[in-house]
Amino acid sequence: MTTSLPTSAQSSPLGLHRVLDPPGVLPQAAWRLDPSPVIAPDEVRVRVDRLNLDAASYRQLREAYAGDPDKIRAAVLDIIATRGKMQNPVTGSGGMLTGTVEEAGPDSPLGLHPGQRIATLVSLTLTPLSITDHLQRWDAQSEQIPCDGHAILFARSIAAVLPDDLPVPLALAVMDVCGAPALTSRVVQKGNIAAIIGAAGKSGSLSAAAARNAGASRVIGVVPTEAEAALLRNPGTPLADEIVIADARDPVGLAERVQTAGGPADVTVVCVDVPGCEGGAILSTTQGGTVIFFSMATSFSAAALGAEGLAADVTMLVGNGYVPGHAEFALDLLRTTPSVRCLFEERVNS
Amino acid sequence: MTTSLPTSAQSSPLGLHRVLDPPGVLPQAAWRLDPSPVIAPDEVRVRVDRLNLDAASYRQLREAYAGDPDKIRAAVLDIIATRGKMQNPVTGSGGMLTGTVEEAGPDSPLGLHPGQRIATLVSLTLTPLSITDHLQRWDAQSEQIPCDGHAILFARSIAAVLPDDLPVPLALAVMDVCGAPALTSRVVQKGNIAAIIGAAGKSGSLSAAAARNAGASRVIGVVPTEAEAALLRNPGTPLADEIVIADARDPVGLAERVQTAGGPADVTVVCVDVPGCEGGAILSTTQGGTVIFFSMATSFSAAALGAEGLAADVTMLVGNGYVPGHAEFALDLLRTTPSVRCLFEERVNS
Repeated sequence: MTTSLPTSAQSSPLGLHRVLDPPGVLPQAAWRLDPSPVIAPDEVRVRVDRLNLDAASYRQLREAYAGDPDKIRAAVLDIIATRGKMQNPVTGSGGMLTGTVEEAGPDSPLGLHPGQRIATLVSLTLTPLSITDHLQRWDAQSEQIPCDGHAILFARSIAAVLPDDLPVPLALAVMDVCGAPALTSRVVQKGNIAAIIGAAGKSGSLSAAAARNAGASRVIGVVPTEAEAALLRNPGTPLADEIVIADARDPVGLAERVQTAGGPADVTVVCVDVPGCEGGAILSTTQGGTVIFFSMATSFSAAALGAEGLAADVTMLVGNGYVPGHAEFALDLLRTTPSVRCLFEERVNS
Repeated sequence: MTTSLPTSAQSSPLGLHRVLDPPGVLPQAAWRLDPSPVIAPDEVRVRVDRLNLDAASYRQLREAYAGDPDKIRAAVLDIIATRGKMQNPVTGSGGMLTGTVEEAGPDSPLGLHPGQRIATLVSLTLTPLSITDHLQRWDAQSEQIPCDGHAILFARSIAAVLPDDLPVPLALAVMDVCGAPALTSRVVQKGNIAAIIGAAGKSGSLSAAAARNAGASRVIGVVPTEAEAALLRNPGTPLADEIVIADARDPVGLAERVQTAGGPADVTVVCVDVPGCEGGAILSTTQGGTVIFFSMATSFSAAALGAEGLAADVTMLVGNGYVPGHAEFALDLLRTTPSVRCLFEERVNS
């Protein structure tokens, strides 16, 4: 292996050695990364076949260039060439990629081997990237970019091998939310009552299945509408023992209905992306219990002050998207829980 | 929800029976509460001697009435008479009160007795309140309102007995941040390395003392300046084994300095009210460790996405302001840790 660039001693598991400008910041905060294809002993080089832009980033580009495909393509190429990564300077967001492992350094802890088809689970905003085909196969009509080029994974990057037995869009949809079931499984103890708010969604259905597998004695699925409730009432394995239709933004109404369904919960998992669910989640949880917030609409201060205002002695967790082995865990849940698979297929194909 | 006078069967530990308008919401969200002095068996009535308005609320009132004392007084009286609680309709905020227990219902779990001097640790925004002296002793020149009237505590309200051995302003300053040391003490295990970000502040110094008492093998105190470091280098009991001067908003710089001081930490406690400290806290924490966010400037999404981007398997806790017994615990820390007391006295008197 040629190592003109970084040696083992110089490379950083976080990719600090790839940061060109400004020096000393994390790759995500950097303006420019070094996408050189020569890898350090703990890095992995991936042959990229597809970029999946973040929805906000693609929307901004399409609007800025009035949908003109040539201009959108040129803009994306310019960002990647200038910054050494695909981070939209306006939205700050990135996306993810799929590709094939080309070379894995001997000290890489990721366990990847050349030839494996993978998806990155860390953002494009921190992934060194170089494009070689001018994106000529991309019509710029969607955020899915077929392409050729390479990307670099650091020792602490996260990538998952794409399974052979599942369609790629289905696997990617699972990987997108795989932190939720992994953390739910870690927190739920045997015999616990678990309430999943937004149980018919992607992260919610996986979390419901994870709670059941972790030994929950009762899984209460909270959904906003009868239509969502119907998704949970699958003829296969039931995802929830009790289905509650409630507005998660109404603390008293939610807590009363969860109570009627066998609550309060020992563990409440918030998987709905609407603001204002903090109080209801706290009030649906027993004293000494735990609330896991996976919704990006969660307000830190509403959670902290809400618990204080209710004199609620609950442990509140920020849903960390990373738990070791989370992608494999979530894919297995999908494989072994027909009702989860059915729900995902419906959402991916709609 | 009934609005007639509460009996044991009808009263709610959260005070739902005191909500007049709109029915069915939590007292904090209500427009109007019933401040009737007749208590339910699980309630407590307090003779109020002082209101301490939230700073934002007082500022709004002073500006709205151009500092005119009569108009400010009339406005506060009108809010309390109309709403049955002191919740500024513009800012939404309240404050706290001190007073003397007048009557405690036989079923109240708060453990209070007539004659005890107390402070409420739940917000005025959810406390039924009635004022009888027209606030005639208040000059409207500060947010401290000497007054006469009564307030109602519910079964799940939080109140702390004011200690005889400490000046009231000192005790109130401790109570204001008492959730932080209590939760820190719960999370830190014997032999842990603890990093306290903002260790020279009120919640930070108490958290440092709590970490030490919980058996931390090393307490690393992080402060932004040499002046703050000097506060920690008290000739009495040292609050930190290592003092690190770093900008908590610089993830790489902070993590490197914490590392040099004996980190990474098993438990990192964030007590500085500046935005952008999430990445540094995560990066200063060992894999499998815990970050407790007490700063109201914490961004939920920055924490969640930050941990994912760094492939950091850390447990992240929303600092709950309520832990049973938190006020007594914090007051005891102040009494038994001369350097904490010294630091508080300096901050309260400055």
